[in-house]
Amino acid sequence: MRFSRAFLPVLKESPSDAQIVSHKLMLRAGLVRQTAAGIYAWLPLGFRVLKKIEQIVREEQDRAGAQEMLMPTLQSAELWRESGRYDAYGPEMLRIRDRHDREMLYGPTNEEMLTAIFRDEAKSYRDLPRTLYHIQWKFRDEVRPRFGVMRGREFLMKDAYSFDLDEASARLSYYTQLLAYLRTFQRMGIRAVPMKAASGPIGGDLSHEFIVLAPTGESEVFYDAAFEEMDWNRSDLRYDDPVGLHNLFDDVTSTYAATDETHEEDRWADISEERRRTGRGIEVGHIFYFGDKYSGPMGLRVTGPDGQMVAPMMGSYGIGVSRLVAAVIEASHDDAGIIWPESVAPWKVGLVTMRQDDEATVAAADELYSRLKGAGIEVLYDDRDERGGVKLGTMDLIGLPWQLVVGPRGIASGVVELKNRASGEKEELSMESALARLTA
Amino acid sequence: MRFSRAFLPVLKESPSDAQIVSHKLMLRAGLVRQTAAGIYAWLPLGFRVLKKIEQIVREEQDRAGAQEMLMPTLQSAELWRESGRYDAYGPEMLRIRDRHDREMLYGPTNEEMLTAIFRDEAKSYRDLPRTLYHIQWKFRDEVRPRFGVMRGREFLMKDAYSFDLDEASARLSYYTQLLAYLRTFQRMGIRAVPMKAASGPIGGDLSHEFIVLAPTGESEVFYDAAFEEMDWNRSDLRYDDPVGLHNLFDDVTSTYAATDETHEEDRWADISEERRRTGRGIEVGHIFYFGDKYSGPMGLRVTGPDGQMVAPMMGSYGIGVSRLVAAVIEASHDDAGIIWPESVAPWKVGLVTMRQDDEATVAAADELYSRLKGAGIEVLYDDRDERGGVKLGTMDLIGLPWQLVVGPRGIASGVVELKNRASGEKEELSMESALARLTA
Repeated sequence: MRFSRAFLPVLKESPSDAQIVSHKLMLRAGLVRQTAAGIYAWLPLGFRVLKKIEQIVREEQDRAGAQEMLMPTLQSAELWRESGRYDAYGPEMLRIRDRHDREMLYGPTNEEMLTAIFRDEAKSYRDLPRTLYHIQWKFRDEVRPRFGVMRGREFLMKDAYSFDLDEASARLSYYTQLLAYLRTFQRMGIRAVPMKAASGPIGGDLSHEFIVLAPTGESEVFYDAAFEEMDWNRSDLRYDDPVGLHNLFDDVTSTYAATDETHEEDRWADISEERRRTGRGIEVGHIFYFGDKYSGPMGLRVTGPDGQMVAPMMGSYGIGVSRLVAAVIEASHDDAGIIWPESVAPWKVGLVTMRQDDEATVAAADELYSRLKGAGIEVLYDDRDERGGVKLGTMDLIGLPWQLVVGPRGIASGVVELKNRASGEKEELSMESALARLTA
Repeated sequence: MRFSRAFLPVLKESPSDAQIVSHKLMLRAGLVRQTAAGIYAWLPLGFRVLKKIEQIVREEQDRAGAQEMLMPTLQSAELWRESGRYDAYGPEMLRIRDRHDREMLYGPTNEEMLTAIFRDEAKSYRDLPRTLYHIQWKFRDEVRPRFGVMRGREFLMKDAYSFDLDEASARLSYYTQLLAYLRTFQRMGIRAVPMKAASGPIGGDLSHEFIVLAPTGESEVFYDAAFEEMDWNRSDLRYDDPVGLHNLFDDVTSTYAATDETHEEDRWADISEERRRTGRGIEVGHIFYFGDKYSGPMGLRVTGPDGQMVAPMMGSYGIGVSRLVAAVIEASHDDAGIIWPESVAPWKVGLVTMRQDDEATVAAADELYSRLKGAGIEVLYDDRDERGGVKLGTMDLIGLPWQLVVGPRGIASGVVELKNRASGEKEELSMESALARLTA
């Protein structure tokens, strides 16, 4: 993409109404614009990151055997009366009346809807187990929306739902999602620690939240250094290995991790001092096992192997996809701007001309642009007629992993500069070496 | 995907409440389920087709230089008061009040929102031209939603918006989208004819709708056979060739095409009889040029090259993404079920075992499944313990382009059967030849 033709509005000043660093940077770097309280439009730069994060979530759900579908944003109130949550949910539920005065709502979650769909289609134990998910916009009418997309009202969520014949099988579905979550966050280049959680309005007695570590996080967290050493992609962790999944769950839950709400001083004291880690964190995912809480009252039954009718045991599993964009920024930035992990970066390379009025510079940059694109590398080419220093500042702000800088002096001696945004390291290289490095 | 583990509910009977063939088939083959009047959940099979269609739309928009972003579903009423459309829009607009009693609405289209975003960011003629688009759920509160997703209330639309310095440049943006639309529909394997249209509530004086030809279409259409011969992907049509785009527009608009509403008997009579085509059609896209209808009253201004402030000239361009799923089915089906064009098929190949209790059959099918998947081919493997005839009927119903049938008799003589769903042609082949054919 050529910057001169792109819609990438960058702000020189830090917006005064933003309180947290991710919100400030998302406005300054042109990721989002607010269109109403707690409601945001995703501009091209932010949209690219949102899609990258969504795609990682999708791939890891698919890998874990979940099947993607898509439920609508609006739901009928009737459905929520069946579970008893319509009156219980409170003012965060956006209630709507259509032209025929029918009561509707903008879905904050989909337990009821999918239970009803599954009830109409599943007949027997052969239709179990199944885990279904969708990635769809949700709405929660926060009384005071703030912190940008971190606590917005309209937000993108991945929510999965599992249906199993009995509790043992349902727990396996829960462990499977647990592993999928750990892998998902690891691929995004952030560290997420699973912590035992209260179930809240979803219900059930087994629940974990996933906390991304970020210095500016909303809550204090305490955890064992073991979480820094675990590789969730190691080959001995397999979805088709029930014993391994069970062991994973035991390992994870026996390793200390707690927020300030659940922190236990005596267990903490048992951990050797050099293994204690404290920090701050942001919740980006939450998983629940709740048995027959919805299948029971909503009448979802299948024939078991013995011919008896049984209510499937269920769980649900949420990831805040739009919130993750902000969480990654909270976890990865410096004073100059965002530092995108490569897996979620909007483009891999930012190509910059220091002098757009110098023919040799532009010719060299044009060639680099076309060869990088030809090799399938995502490049943002800042070909604007701006001062070189301004352009480098913009590149630091929007935080692409690599900056490839072309200027008249370097071209005269046959070199370009390659900068790693995360480490700040700069290196002078021939064009061929720079291309080889970036396309490797 | 193994059918035995998939969530693919297929109905034996044709649902009695569906009036048109696409709605019947989408219910029977398990693409969608209604969750409220005019609101549908997309089950895994339907979701896959929806994503394929969305991706073709996206790729052709990107190829035409449009930039993707994403605007929210909910909008503030304030925005629509600025253009004067809040009161004008009528009861099809779903109006909502949030917990603070602020007036909101579920967006039926986004001219106002994007004009306001662009107004805050664009400063000068250097910020033009730009075409931005998004693919997002919309809501129109139809008084009598019917025909499934063909006339639903919550629907997925691609809407693009162009901003140009003057009318000449804006017309070029319009022609660019015209070509992108023709290419988009051609890639989906359907014939879409552009027809001059009234602008309606969007406004403006230049507008075309795109009608997909289908025997069960909602309106009668009349067109010149020339439209059957045009290849919109031919290499002499280029987005960077203004003269060529202008000629394309002249060619398209001078070739006769009209719905019963705009049909002109005298122009029709001028076309030689063997070139006259009549049929029925479904609107799947609509493009509009409306100049300063929104930029004017909403105060969007940029500095022109001469230092004077000017209101950009705008157009908007819609494609009904969810409706297209139904339109493709209307255009491509037979008595046995759907016939997916390969570019939008949920899977390319349906692999069927005729006897799930025959070891040699299952071993051969397992091997075919694993080798097809290894070659990157999308396969639905019907490994259910059902009668072969039932499984073949299901494959015809869901309409995958190729059926690969494995049975004990064939395996004994070293062959499998490959059936082309569209032509009905069957061929006996060795496993190796069948694999070579499908992976070619």
